[in-house]
Amino acid sequence: MSSPWYQSATTDESQILSSRVRLARNIKKYNFPKKLSPQDAAAMVTEAQQAAIRAGSHRLFHQLDINGLSETEQKVFLEKHITSPEFLRGQHPKGLLISDDQNISVMLNEEDHIRIQSVQAGEKLSEALELANQVDDLIEESLEFAYHNEYGYLTACPTNVGTGLRASFMIHLPCLDTTGQLKNLIPHITKFGITIRGIYGEGTQPMGSIYQISNQRTLGKSEEDIIQDLQNVTKNVIEHENQARDNFLKSRLNYLEDRVHRAYGILSHSRMITAEEAMHLLSDIRLGYLANILQKPRPKMQIYQIMIEIQPGHLQRLAGREMQNEERDAQRAEKLREIFS
Amino acid sequence: MSSPWYQSATTDESQILSSRVRLARNIKKYNFPKKLSPQDAAAMVTEAQQAAIRAGSHRLFHQLDINGLSETEQKVFLEKHITSPEFLRGQHPKGLLISDDQNISVMLNEEDHIRIQSVQAGEKLSEALELANQVDDLIEESLEFAYHNEYGYLTACPTNVGTGLRASFMIHLPCLDTTGQLKNLIPHITKFGITIRGIYGEGTQPMGSIYQISNQRTLGKSEEDIIQDLQNVTKNVIEHENQARDNFLKSRLNYLEDRVHRAYGILSHSRMITAEEAMHLLSDIRLGYLANILQKPRPKMQIYQIMIEIQPGHLQRLAGREMQNEERDAQRAEKLREIFS
Repeated sequence: MSSPWYQSATTDESQILSSRVRLARNIKKYNFPKKLSPQDAAAMVTEAQQAAIRAGSHRLFHQLDINGLSETEQKVFLEKHITSPEFLRGQHPKGLLISDDQNISVMLNEEDHIRIQSVQAGEKLSEALELANQVDDLIEESLEFAYHNEYGYLTACPTNVGTGLRASFMIHLPCLDTTGQLKNLIPHITKFGITIRGIYGEGTQPMGSIYQISNQRTLGKSEEDIIQDLQNVTKNVIEHENQARDNFLKSRLNYLEDRVHRAYGILSHSRMITAEEAMHLLSDIRLGYLANILQKPRPKMQIYQIMIEIQPGHLQRLAGREMQNEERDAQRAEKLREIFS
Repeated sequence: MSSPWYQSATTDESQILSSRVRLARNIKKYNFPKKLSPQDAAAMVTEAQQAAIRAGSHRLFHQLDINGLSETEQKVFLEKHITSPEFLRGQHPKGLLISDDQNISVMLNEEDHIRIQSVQAGEKLSEALELANQVDDLIEESLEFAYHNEYGYLTACPTNVGTGLRASFMIHLPCLDTTGQLKNLIPHITKFGITIRGIYGEGTQPMGSIYQISNQRTLGKSEEDIIQDLQNVTKNVIEHENQARDNFLKSRLNYLEDRVHRAYGILSHSRMITAEEAMHLLSDIRLGYLANILQKPRPKMQIYQIMIEIQPGHLQRLAGREMQNEERDAQRAEKLREIFS
């Protein structure tokens, strides 16, 4: 298997597009990144890189020269959810390793020294965690992590102290979005230490009704409890989504059919389209297939793969140059017409 | 020729869809309709009907029992622009005659005793006037009209005194609508005694950027002057429309192409659509063909014929029953999909 998670058919089979795990680790002998001198940072990155490459050799880890990335290449990494926006922006020494299938990545000198990320298509949180833990264990063979017997792993931000684990699902909630019910669910979710964020995580907006649902706290909870709580709450949110969908199918089928088919009509005909509108329409298409409203043959790509590939960075990489908004909107429309007509 | 004007290809060839003439006449020996007793009204209608049938015999005038019309049938007449809304609503004795091709009609006991209407596809005001005048002359052979040597024909409303003529063009102004320039033109038009009204004339809104432009006054002007002024002003308005269109084609071609193709995408895919939205999209399609943006094969029907046939009355007549809004919106979408996909 050497293709990224979003190319797997599993990603379009339910409201859960993907499962993601992130582990935060710090090397004991170095200060946390914010208090690390450039020299020490460079040394830390080199040391961690060597450890990570040893750890990941069996998965063909690629070491990337991220300091020389163009703006377009940076965007591509963000759009694929491989790196955080802050990570690429900073001028400090940093490192990035990516597995051959792009599903495991290691950021060096982000908010913590080491951030291991593991993603799987569909509802596969345990598998994602297992892979992250394998990498974590192998790295730990050659590095001593900052660890406190009572608190657990020590991290730059107190919310990550403990397991250093953030687990999340990427979920699609088009019907809760339409009814506006999602807002009402948030207080109930928060009680369990779970939070719902936008498509690119913290501080980002949802697009195409796609959200990230993740644990907010890690201290005082085992990995198993964190995952169990997240799974329970997510299951509950999805039951609400299905309920809202069933209500539409029962009492407003016309409306839903119209919405889905119009989305198809626009995606197969428009000449200019913003990423935001396209995401919205692709969300309708995804709902259409999930609810068996849309009988048209499925496009060869998964819907979320299309969603990624119409983002600005991907379009610019394809065109081989930076583009202004209007040109990008035209290229995006052309790509979508090819896919849908 | 036995098909109505809106089925002629001429109607889609320029911004002028049709040319219309209306003559207002009253029979000398009867009071004006508002002061006419039901008995006298009935007598007047019978007398005028006989005269009109004699006049129109060579054009196969049909006499319609409009008192027994269902609501759907009434709507159909309005949607075809054959009768005015007020005319059908009233409970007084009245009469309606329609030529075989539906392009000439005579309303009896509307605001005046006799209203002769003549419509032609495209820019054919003189032809429309000639046909109306033929009917007028033939009717006058057997009736004495209220006529004043100085003022001309006497009518219920002073604005019609003189020739009793209202001449109008139905025009399509999508680009002036988009830019909002039409509002600025209106004061200039009014100076020439010309007015721009909605799609169904006085007191109606424009739909699909379709307007009626007509003379406001008739007293003290000859038929030739009225028609000349209307033609000049209309020519000027259309020059402005063409200017606005050229500006779009030059500086915002992307926008215009997108708008036209999206309209096609929605019309060929929607499952529910209101008359208002459909008119708007059909207007974009009409613009697309006129500006050579749309390369798709033309539908077999003229755009304005489609515009008429998706109105509530026509849809109900086709379905053979009255329908609620939602059902009509679904039927309309189905009909449009058949036409455009």
